[in-house]
Amino acid sequence: MAKTRKPIRSEMAWSSADRIVVRGKDLPGEILGHFNLGDMAFLELTGRAPSAKESTLFNAMVVTLVEHGLTPSAIAARMTYFGAPEAMQAAVAAGLCGLGSVFVGSTEACARMLVEALPDPKADADLEALAREIVDAHRARKAIVPGIGHPIHKPVDPRVPRLFEIAGDCGFYGAYCRLVEAVQQAAERAAGKPLPLNATGALGALACEMGFDWRVCRGIGVMARAVGLVGHLLEEARAPISAEIWHRTDDEASEDLKPK
Amino acid sequence: MAKTRKPIRSEMAWSSADRIVVRGKDLPGEILGHFNLGDMAFLELTGRAPSAKESTLFNAMVVTLVEHGLTPSAIAARMTYFGAPEAMQAAVAAGLCGLGSVFVGSTEACARMLVEALPDPKADADLEALAREIVDAHRARKAIVPGIGHPIHKPVDPRVPRLFEIAGDCGFYGAYCRLVEAVQQAAERAAGKPLPLNATGALGALACEMGFDWRVCRGIGVMARAVGLVGHLLEEARAPISAEIWHRTDDEASEDLKPK
Amino acid sequence: MAKTRKPIRSEMAWSSADRIVVRGKDLPGEILGHFNLGDMAFLELTGRAPSAKESTLFNAMVVTLVEHGLTPSAIAARMTYFGAPEAMQAAVAAGLCGLGSVFVGSTEACARMLVEALPDPKADADLEALAREIVDAHRARKAIVPGIGHPIHKPVDPRVPRLFEIAGDCGFYGAYCRLVEAVQQAAERAAGKPLPLNATGALGALACEMGFDWRVCRGIGVMARAVGLVGHLLEEARAPISAEIWHRTDDEASEDLKPK
Amino acid sequence: MAKTRKPIRSEMAWSSADRIVVRGKDLPGEILGHFNLGDMAFLELTGRAPSAKESTLFNAMVVTLVEHGLTPSAIAARMTYFGAPEAMQAAVAAGLCGLGSVFVGSTEACARMLVEALPDPKADADLEALAREIVDAHRARKAIVPGIGHPIHKPVDPRVPRLFEIAGDCGFYGAYCRLVEAVQQAAERAAGKPLPLNATGALGALACEMGFDWRVCRGIGVMARAVGLVGHLLEEARAPISAEIWHRTDDEASEDLKPK
Repeated sequence: MAKTRKPIRSEMAWSSADRIVVRGKDLPGEILGHFNLGDMAFLELTGRAPSAKESTLFNAMVVTLVEHGLTPSAIAARMTYFGAPEAMQAAVAAGLCGLGSVFVGSTEACARMLVEALPDPKADADLEALAREIVDAHRARKAIVPGIGHPIHKPVDPRVPRLFEIAGDCGFYGAYCRLVEAVQQAAERAAGKPLPLNATGALGALACEMGFDWRVCRGIGVMARAVGLVGHLLEEARAPISAEIWHRTDDEASEDLKPK
Repeated sequence: MAKTRKPIRSEMAWSSADRIVVRGKDLPGEILGHFNLGDMAFLELTGRAPSAKESTLFNAMVVTLVEHGLTPSAIAARMTYFGAPEAMQAAVAAGLCGLGSVFVGSTEACARMLVEALPDPKADADLEALAREIVDAHRARKAIVPGIGHPIHKPVDPRVPRLFEIAGDCGFYGAYCRLVEAVQQAAERAAGKPLPLNATGALGALACEMGFDWRVCRGIGVMARAVGLVGHLLEEARAPISAEIWHRTDDEASEDLKPK
Repeated sequence: MAKTRKPIRSEMAWSSADRIVVRGKDLPGEILGHFNLGDMAFLELTGRAPSAKESTLFNAMVVTLVEHGLTPSAIAARMTYFGAPEAMQAAVAAGLCGLGSVFVGSTEACARMLVEALPDPKADADLEALAREIVDAHRARKAIVPGIGHPIHKPVDPRVPRLFEIAGDCGFYGAYCRLVEAVQQAAERAAGKPLPLNATGALGALACEMGFDWRVCRGIGVMARAVGLVGHLLEEARAPISAEIWHRTDDEASEDLKPK
Repeated sequence: MAKTRKPIRSEMAWSSADRIVVRGKDLPGEILGHFNLGDMAFLELTGRAPSAKESTLFNAMVVTLVEHGLTPSAIAARMTYFGAPEAMQAAVAAGLCGLGSVFVGSTEACARMLVEALPDPKADADLEALAREIVDAHRARKAIVPGIGHPIHKPVDPRVPRLFEIAGDCGFYGAYCRLVEAVQQAAERAAGKPLPLNATGALGALACEMGFDWRVCRGIGVMARAVGLVGHLLEEARAPISAEIWHRTDDEASEDLKPK
């Protein structure tokens, strides 16, 4: 089967004997010492340097997602490190594998919901009406509205007002932020109980404000958690807890099966 | 078997209804808007905020490792995304799994070599003699000196002078930097051919200057590459190349096996 | 927040000083030497030993999925091994991460489609009518019918008649097999071009015949490929190709970016 | 940089419109219905079909490693599934990532130790002297002898006599089995306390008896555990425990940090 070859192209980087260029910028001359890690992530995602205000907001967004304590993801990473301490990279990988629909997924689901409801943020839209439509549609199919509700942070997720404050300072508090707040209010009214806007909801709205495709949201969450998982593994190396979690779990789980 | 339970403790984070505290700092009030992503990584690794100079150098160190073009790790991530585009986190994880002894490992090996040769950087040591010992010991067992040599960047890896310049500006160009430069010169003399100090060697020395345990180095590389892999996957989503790599590889690999 | 603890229970295995019991069976006395690896997988999935006929068919089903040459999954595993040869487990893991919707997913999608169309295989159903409904529904939303069509194996996927022959010998060629064959014929008629039933379609039907939940299908694919990936990594260790794939890809991908 | 291309070759499989050939054997005609899953694994690892006796022993070896209850690896897989139930493959991958030096590594370490001590199993060697040398060398560097000792299965690991019984029946109880038993006795004498030969030690010896390279051992463990992890994930889907493990762990870990 003679196939026509397609070209293989990537614009991420190139190098020669004396040069290294990333997304069109000279790494030693234009990036090192000038870009912080969040700026570099922005360059990787968009192909351009962030403005000062984009840098401030984007760094805050990623930083929000770095550390959440002993999540299932952190426990998976620590359990993996216990068995293969020589391969820390695989322990981080194991922790990332669980960043799917249940956790990181709600940011992208919220961003997608907002951008599908309001494709043009400059349009003269009735945000309250859109919010009611969104909430009604979710309630009709008994689905949770992504970005709304939190098991612990009630009545307010403390990250949300701070993120919106930073967004306001940076000129990024716009129609998507107002829409997600209207969604929260509509959801709360419909449910008849406190339903806070959570951090993933605020981050989904901010991703839309910055013009990111909703698919970028999971990537932001994944890179942030990679940073946090390294922190957990270094603590695990200093003060291990995985063996104790293992023994308690295994002992309890098979207790009833054993002959008395 | 009645076991004594050991306590399970972690100092990474805690939260209550209205508070989220990471490594002792209030996330909304003290971190968001104040810490860039590299600073947050520093906090995760060390438990404290970086000084301004530490922030500049540490961000530059991590940024150096973010993007290296179509490495085996990036190819693995893209191949994985091709089969499971709904699970981008697993594609990043696949890319991280290969950051072992061959690639990211040389930074930690260099840091370990330097700190074992010079446990106290303030000691009055003969760095040239130490460098010769290091090179002789590696040559005696026919081992590559970690951090020395590069297949493309010859005679100088352009990242190294820039990293050392930033280190100098920040007050972190010290005994470990001088030692690794002496090692480079000794290795080059012994080999009788150009052997540059590469970026992993400079980063290993800088990790020592900042007082990091050598085990931290792999973690720095892993978090940096997680950022870069997200960039690769977004490019793969926009302009896919994995199917072409697959077809070319599979066609060529089994060509001889097929009956004519 | 005082939470009520729920019990942690697992019926997979227990052990004491002198006993190891897996799914209720004594490992040394009842399993070792009596169960082949496919039988053990059946025990893990169902909690019981397979009959002789179930053993034959189930082993054939899993064996079908072990080896497919240099798939994206195998390339990802080899690329990972190149960077971390000391962590073969992580290379297998990287290869598994891509077994998502595009590849292994079609078996489960087919099984789900069949069991939803025919919840009771003993019901007196008009299979041809069901098949037409399935095909029409997929065509209406421009979706591919899972299990139907193959880029290379035309007009017949050679695994399918053999799998159905074994199923027939074992007493498992029933309503789901007939339904998936009717679906293939309806799809082919509707498309007006040859559309073979592929191996994932046959396996989806056979999973239904054996009474497996459709969610089990991905697990069967994942365990099979884990076996095959180990084979690929041992070949990579003997006769490496990953560095060559890497260099060709990286050279071509950035060729246009470099200054002439 | 004009590079000479090296060929890309793989002998794992090829296919054409009407044929699929794995390791030189016709998949539908020679493998399906004839090979059980363990035989297929043997073919992948060695390139040939096992004899009947090899099949019996090899299947028993892999089956031994499939299920060990709620190991750290199983917990990591379940935690991952909790966050990304739509990506079961990634949960298996996360579980595999921890099969490193601490768990699966001891089989390969034992096999390597045995084959390095006795490169030619037909040589007329003094096995007791070799065993003493091995034990003395490990004690001198305060290292555990791989394959010796078990925290629960004392004084005898019940898998070991059964594996050696099967090996004897199949004609594979030879010099490496005798050597590892001599090592166990020497280790026990030197320690002055019961030190059983454990299953990984027996499997390491049997891998040597079958002529496998010691690098194959980790692969055998990885494929076996992939089977077992699928079993755990299906139980997790039916009767979840990961949320409970998470909540207990997270609550206890940060209890002391919270203001009273």
